[in-house]
Amino acid sequence: MRYINFGDEPAISPDDFFMNEAIREAKLALAEDEIPIGAIVVCKGKIIGRGHNLTERLNDVSAHAEMQALTAAANFMGGKYLQDCTLYVTMEPCVMCAGASYWFQLSRIVFGAYDTKLGFGRINQKITHPKTVITGGILENECAELVRGFFKSKRK
Amino acid sequence: MRYINFGDEPAISPDDFFMNEAIREAKLALAEDEIPIGAIVVCKGKIIGRGHNLTERLNDVSAHAEMQALTAAANFMGGKYLQDCTLYVTMEPCVMCAGASYWFQLSRIVFGAYDTKLGFGRINQKITHPKTVITGGILENECAELVRGFFKSKRK
Repeated sequence: MRYINFGDEPAISPDDFFMNEAIREAKLALAEDEIPIGAIVVCKGKIIGRGHNLTERLNDVSAHAEMQALTAAANFMGGKYLQDCTLYVTMEPCVMCAGASYWFQLSRIVFGAYDTKLGFGRINQKITHPKTVITGGILENECAELVRGFFKSKRK
Repeated sequence: MRYINFGDEPAISPDDFFMNEAIREAKLALAEDEIPIGAIVVCKGKIIGRGHNLTERLNDVSAHAEMQALTAAANFMGGKYLQDCTLYVTMEPCVMCAGASYWFQLSRIVFGAYDTKLGFGRINQKITHPKTVITGGILENECAELVRGFFKSKRK
């Protein structure tokens, strides 16, 4: 594992670094009173797509952070596929978003908090592309706390 | 099963009637040199959303007919959910589209041709909404022939 080093600051792993960028997107959702989930797409160390949950603003239950980031990245690439790309998302993707990643032929999915109820991990068959590698639990607590805090504030 | 009757014409079942409308959408895709898959959303006997495959035109591998029709229908309803709605689509939906239908809380999915390789039926767990009823094989041959003919012409 290589590390990005910023002079005297403590080294941070690339996955932590990019998950922090996804968290930044989640906070943009929070500021708009959306469920705070954020996503970015990274290709060869460069962020090529960003997105956050827009289900309320767009009044579209399918406007998930991942869908925004994936289509933004594909748009940027000007091509169809995201074969050398990694999706970083603060919450385990749902079946729809995992299914979308199949079509984009994504190389890797890295997510923060687990979603045992609606995450695609509950499906006992491979629904992502055969070559998509999955990593879960990166900055898990921070990612989970964002969503937990949001729903707690709603119940008040 | 109720039947729509047009005077002296032979009676046609509602499912056949609406699948013909989805086929009409598929033919619009074909005219644009897209893989000919079409979809409509019906609410209480009325078509409230239409869509066809736009993956080439939009250069977006996730621009499936179902996604177009579902978002168009939700837009028309001005609400989030499609609880009294049926999606008619010429081809068995993929995992992404079936996953999207979960979020829209769709009442029913009716599809034409089976897609044993990429259709959501290959998943042995329920990925649509718990109350979504599935019917497959409506005007199956006609729906399948459209796609078969398209790929046959491409191989020439």
